[in-house]
Amino acid sequence: MSTGSGFYAGRRVTVTGGASFIGSHLATALLRAGAKVTIADNYSSGTTENLREIAADVEVLELDLRSPDDALRACAGAELVFHLAAAHGGRGYIDSHADACAENFLIDQHVFRSAVRSGVDRVAFASSACVYPAALQQPQTHRALREDLVGPPYDPDGMYGMAKLCGELVLRGIAEQHGVGAVSCRYFTAYGPRCGESHAIMAMIARAFLGADPFQVWGDGTQVRTWIYVEDVVRLTMLAAEHVSDGSAVNIATDEMYTVRDAAELVLRVTGHEATIETLPHMPTGPLFRTADLERSTTLLGAVPQVNLAEGVRRTAEWYFRSKERGTIARDLPALLVERG
Amino acid sequence: MSTGSGFYAGRRVTVTGGASFIGSHLATALLRAGAKVTIADNYSSGTTENLREIAADVEVLELDLRSPDDALRACAGAELVFHLAAAHGGRGYIDSHADACAENFLIDQHVFRSAVRSGVDRVAFASSACVYPAALQQPQTHRALREDLVGPPYDPDGMYGMAKLCGELVLRGIAEQHGVGAVSCRYFTAYGPRCGESHAIMAMIARAFLGADPFQVWGDGTQVRTWIYVEDVVRLTMLAAEHVSDGSAVNIATDEMYTVRDAAELVLRVTGHEATIETLPHMPTGPLFRTADLERSTTLLGAVPQVNLAEGVRRTAEWYFRSKERGTIARDLPALLVERG
Repeated sequence: MSTGSGFYAGRRVTVTGGASFIGSHLATALLRAGAKVTIADNYSSGTTENLREIAADVEVLELDLRSPDDALRACAGAELVFHLAAAHGGRGYIDSHADACAENFLIDQHVFRSAVRSGVDRVAFASSACVYPAALQQPQTHRALREDLVGPPYDPDGMYGMAKLCGELVLRGIAEQHGVGAVSCRYFTAYGPRCGESHAIMAMIARAFLGADPFQVWGDGTQVRTWIYVEDVVRLTMLAAEHVSDGSAVNIATDEMYTVRDAAELVLRVTGHEATIETLPHMPTGPLFRTADLERSTTLLGAVPQVNLAEGVRRTAEWYFRSKERGTIARDLPALLVERG
Repeated sequence: MSTGSGFYAGRRVTVTGGASFIGSHLATALLRAGAKVTIADNYSSGTTENLREIAADVEVLELDLRSPDDALRACAGAELVFHLAAAHGGRGYIDSHADACAENFLIDQHVFRSAVRSGVDRVAFASSACVYPAALQQPQTHRALREDLVGPPYDPDGMYGMAKLCGELVLRGIAEQHGVGAVSCRYFTAYGPRCGESHAIMAMIARAFLGADPFQVWGDGTQVRTWIYVEDVVRLTMLAAEHVSDGSAVNIATDEMYTVRDAAELVLRVTGHEATIETLPHMPTGPLFRTADLERSTTLLGAVPQVNLAEGVRRTAEWYFRSKERGTIARDLPALLVERG
C-alpha cells in the first residue's frame, strides 16, 4: 500500500483522528511507507482496538482538538499533518447532530493554526463530498461532481458539509498567506473494516450478519452513490498529500455507481444471506444522486481506486463476521445506526 | 436611548467587544437602561478612551475570546450576552484580511458555547449584511435584502460574511438544541463617533477634516448603500434582544438609499469643505447595490431608525473635528483606511 516514491520515508507525520476508522488504516499505511507516525485522538470514535496491530510502532497522544493547546501538542514536531479528526458519521449521525458537527469549525481552525505555528510543511485535510451543492445531486439535474462545482454560491450538505466547506476555505487561505502546503481530500462515502454501522454499506453488512428478513434499507432504494474502500481512500490520500500542495481540493472516490437497492443485493449475495429487501422511504437518505468526477484526481495523483464494491464488501463482511458478536450487534444496532463513527 | 420597557433594569449583561465602536455605545445605552454591564474586550480595536465616560460604572474584563477559557469568563454570571467581538472593519479591511476574519469562526463558537454552559438566558449576535448573496446586490438584479433571502444556496461576502453566516447557523442550532434565546442582528453599514476610517463615511469625514482636494472616494461612486447611525444601531439591537428569541435574524438598517457619490457630496456640504470628487474605480467597493428590507424588523421591534444620514454625518463630523488631531490623521490615514475597527 506504499505510494512507492519514498516520499514518506523517515518523515514525521501526525494523523489526527488516527485511532478511528480511516485514520487507523492511514497510520498503518504511513508506517509501511517508512514514516514516523504520531496519532492524536480523543477516542470519541477511535478505539485502542483499532491500533492493536501498530500500537508498538506509533506514538499516541490522547488529547482533545477542541482545545487549542491540545491542537498545538498534536502538531508539534510534525512535518506533515493528516487532519482527519472530526465529529463525523453516516447519514444517521450527521442529520441529527448539527451541534456536534459545528464543533468541527473549532477543531479545524485549531489544527490549521497550530500547523502554521509549529512550522508544519504540509496539511492534508479530510474533507467530504458533503461540500457539493445539493442541486447537482438530484435525479433530473445530477452531474458527476467535479472539484470546481462547489461554488459560490455554496449549498453544502447540512452543518457537517458547511463546516467541511469552511475548513477548506480557511485552509486554502492559510496556505496562501503562510506558505504552508495544503490539500483538501473530498472523501466520498468510505467503508471497510472498522467502519461504523451508521454508514449504509456497514448497516447492510450488519443486517446480513444478524440474518435480518425483511432486509431494511433507508430511503426508497433508488439513491445513487459511489462507495470507496478504505484501502483506496488511504492510498489516494497519501498521494494527494505528496502531489498537491496549493490548497486545492481533490475528490477521493471511485467511478462505480450503485443504487442503494443494488448495493443491498450485492451485500446479500456476497454474504450468502437470503432475504426480502424492504425500503424505508421515511428514513434519512441524503442526496439522491451523488457521484464523482475523477479527472482531476486521476491526473494529479496518477492513480485510481483498485478495489471494486464487490471485492470491498467481501473483505469488509469477512472482517465483520469474524470480529463481531451476534448478541451485541442484535442489542446495539438501533443505536449504532445513528451513532458517531 | 432606553427602550422604555424596563426590560434591562437590573439585568446582568455582558457586551463582548464592548470597548470598540458599536460595543461602547451599546454599553452606555445599557447602563442608562439600568443594566449591570460587563465588558469583555482584548483592545484589538477597542480602546480605553471609548470607555472613558462609563469606566466607573462597568466591569471591564480584558481577555481574548480566541481562548475558550476567556470566553467562559466573559459569559460567567451574565443573563444576556451581546456578542459584538469580531475581527471586523470596513471594505478596506475585510477584503484584505481573510485569515483574521476566519478567527471569527473561533470567537463565535467559543462565546455561544460558553453562553450555554454559563446558563445565559439570551444571546444577541452582531451579524452583518455580508451574509446576503452577492447576486442580489447588483445594479440590474438587486432586491431590498429581506431576512429570508440568505439561502441556501449561500453566497456571503468573503470570509467575513461566511464566518458571520456560520455564526448565525450555529447560534440558531444551539438555541434550538439548548433552549437559549437568541437573535442575529444583521448590521448594515454603521457609522458614528468612534467608528474607524476603514468605513466609507468615516473615510470621507477624515478627508474633509484634512481638506483633501481632490476628494477621493473608492469605486466609481455609483455604489448604493444604506448607512445607519450608531445610536439607532444600539437602540434597535436592544429591542431585538428584548423581542426576538427564536434564533432568527433581523436587519438593523435604514431605508435611506445613497450612492457613494451623493454621500460624498453630503459630507462635503455638512463639513463646509469644497473640493472636486475624484472616484477611484480600482479600489475595493464591495457589492454595488446593497439596501435593506425593513418589514420584519419594523414589525418585530416596533421601531425604525430616527437619525437620517445628514443628521448622523453632522453629529459624527462634529465629534471627528473636535477630537482628532490633523497632523496625526494626515500621517496615519493611508493605514487607517485598511485597518481593523
